[in-house]
Amino acid sequence: MTRPLDRLRTASAERESAGLRRVLRPRTPDHDGLLDLASNDYLGLSRDERLVEAAVRATREWGTGSTGSRLVTGTTRLHADLEERLAAFTGADRALVFSSGYLANLGAVAALARGGLVVSDSGNHASIVDACRLSRSRVAVTPHGDVDAVAKVLAERSEEHAIVVTDAVFSVDGDLAPLRRLHAVAVRHGALLIVDEAHALGVVGDRGRGAVHEAGLSGDSHIVRTVTLSKSLGSQGGAVLGAPEVIETLVDTGRSFIFDTGLAPGCVGAALAALDILEESPDLPRQALSRARALAGMAREAGLETSEPAAAVVPVVLGPPQLALAAANLCAERGIRVGCFRPPSVPRGRSSLRLTARADLRSDDLAAVRGALTAVAELKVDT
Amino acid sequence: MTRPLDRLRTASAERESAGLRRVLRPRTPDHDGLLDLASNDYLGLSRDERLVEAAVRATREWGTGSTGSRLVTGTTRLHADLEERLAAFTGADRALVFSSGYLANLGAVAALARGGLVVSDSGNHASIVDACRLSRSRVAVTPHGDVDAVAKVLAERSEEHAIVVTDAVFSVDGDLAPLRRLHAVAVRHGALLIVDEAHALGVVGDRGRGAVHEAGLSGDSHIVRTVTLSKSLGSQGGAVLGAPEVIETLVDTGRSFIFDTGLAPGCVGAALAALDILEESPDLPRQALSRARALAGMAREAGLETSEPAAAVVPVVLGPPQLALAAANLCAERGIRVGCFRPPSVPRGRSSLRLTARADLRSDDLAAVRGALTAVAELKVDT
Ligand SMILES: Cc1ncc(COP(=O)(O)O)c(C=O)c1O
Ligand SMILES: Cc1ncc(COP(=O)(O)O)c(C=O)c1O
Repeated sequence: MTRPLDRLRTASAERESAGLRRVLRPRTPDHDGLLDLASNDYLGLSRDERLVEAAVRATREWGTGSTGSRLVTGTTRLHADLEERLAAFTGADRALVFSSGYLANLGAVAALARGGLVVSDSGNHASIVDACRLSRSRVAVTPHGDVDAVAKVLAERSEEHAIVVTDAVFSVDGDLAPLRRLHAVAVRHGALLIVDEAHALGVVGDRGRGAVHEAGLSGDSHIVRTVTLSKSLGSQGGAVLGAPEVIETLVDTGRSFIFDTGLAPGCVGAALAALDILEESPDLPRQALSRARALAGMAREAGLETSEPAAAVVPVVLGPPQLALAAANLCAERGIRVGCFRPPSVPRGRSSLRLTARADLRSDDLAAVRGALTAVAELKVDT
Repeated sequence: MTRPLDRLRTASAERESAGLRRVLRPRTPDHDGLLDLASNDYLGLSRDERLVEAAVRATREWGTGSTGSRLVTGTTRLHADLEERLAAFTGADRALVFSSGYLANLGAVAALARGGLVVSDSGNHASIVDACRLSRSRVAVTPHGDVDAVAKVLAERSEEHAIVVTDAVFSVDGDLAPLRRLHAVAVRHGALLIVDEAHALGVVGDRGRGAVHEAGLSGDSHIVRTVTLSKSLGSQGGAVLGAPEVIETLVDTGRSFIFDTGLAPGCVGAALAALDILEESPDLPRQALSRARALAGMAREAGLETSEPAAAVVPVVLGPPQLALAAANLCAERGIRVGCFRPPSVPRGRSSLRLTARADLRSDDLAAVRGALTAVAELKVDT
């Protein structure tokens, strides 16, 4: 009989030799003095005075925790305000706040799919993949961005009801889902379309209202959106946006809503302040997007594989995990922190750097990135 | 073809007639002026000045969000400090902080079970049930508290490895799991034992170090604990406690760890302050426990069905959902907010009030509760 820890140790050694061990490196408040191109703080709001003071006020007024499930003592006036503001900002009928974007996805997909068919894009985020597994429904995974495949699965299904689920902006490749065409297919086949706006909110569309809004589909009865408060909005938490029927279904049956503690008041306060800023500063989302395009342009000029970013995420595909790791280290030596994605976060042979743009990147920041990307390209040629 | 929202509306009407609709009622900062016996703020810390000021300081220093996955930019010195402190406080080797207790359970069970057998108590919390579904392992649900059944399933398994998972204090009935006997069975059969200390941390054992510590099993290599920061610790978030091998497995493969944004700094700061208070005030956990026993005593004296509480959760079983609802309303009329549990949160015919004790309940609070419970007993006799 293998003892449990021995088994874990063996598996760990296997990951080690495959170059798949990961280490937590605690950072300082100023990101160790490095230029941060790795966080999801796309608008640079997480350390904005206005968010900080809103979080402080909310914590002083309401305390450090919500104290219970949203259905018991965990719903405050502050949570209700944020729900109204999120709905108004995105043009949705209603919103429901969860303690994370992860749990918002689990709750929405599982509660809305129950017993039907779930059609999920192969590039969807891990939280959606987990949500599919939790849905107790048949799950059909369709090739990335393949609307015809979605239509075919929906047409040939034997289940009465179905949902289609997709990232709006894919978290690794940074590309946009074909939302209008997916919507048309969903409507044609009587399916709900769930769109995860995690990387789109605050960056895509007018004032950052997101990809669904930009596609002219806000408030459409076939669309459900999930968002996170932890990226552009600089806070923590998540939400589901949709018709009253959708929100009521989640309040009554969403397990990750009912059986989880409500979001901490400070996080709610910070997200409310971020929405104020988005309403007041229409240029902020555009700045994040234009910086992302600048980064992608530099990668291309250096001869690296990248793609035109739909939001703030800029992938640089390198191939082997060891090369990606070496490239990330090279960037760090040059004062720049970038993300490094290896399997299982990306498919085998597609290990990459992941650069994220921020609205507040300056031109000297961009110059430093240009130098680093050129060095990465040389490293790639050398190996 | 039924349109998606029509389907949801029909299902909602069915829940309505079964008495299973739920409504969100935003509360005020002072719990609408009611005596709170419904939250999980067992030590009354969520509005404690020391927690509030620690959250404020952490937010001012680190910002309102952690800005990314713990593996990218979401680990700060503050997160590392909390992990060291949680491990030291509970006598575990190491700790890993998640953004919620829910996601800590999903991550721990799924990553540690992978491909083996999971043995889960029928009374386990929804997040553990979801974790089992996500584990991609065979799941055996054993009758509540039945150690022989666990042993039998483990002995007869064909899988190489297995985990046993249980709440330490069950969230609805408030009873304690037979941890020593479960541990002996786990060791005998080479299985890991995962114990969810959500309702035990801060209440059970010396200084509230939890039920595993109280059972003398801290640091045992077969034990993994999960905790939440959102109940006794008055904040938000969760953690897994265990051997280095366990933590490394989660860092490398825990999906709800890797693919989720790190806990907001303010929540981390508040939880650190709560641990300080627990170290300084050894009486606090005992006070919560003695208040819970007082509440249970009153319920018994009033002739109501309850049980000896192992922690701060005191169930009062009434039977039909309508009666439980009426009893909760009666308590509210008398200025007391209690939890009301109906199916699916409890089995059919076991609808209950759920009273939670707080360390800071005063004797006049208890007198008011006595009156309300007497009235509930009369209501029960009348119906
Ligand atoms: C596409 C996508 N959806 C959901 C999430 C989860 O959101 P959160 O971190 O708020 O739990 C993330 C990343 O964290 C994401 O990239
Ligand atoms: C036993 C148990 N485990 C886990 C959780 C989830 O913890 P959290 O609310 O921090 O997500 C809860 C309640 O919320 C619980 O009662």
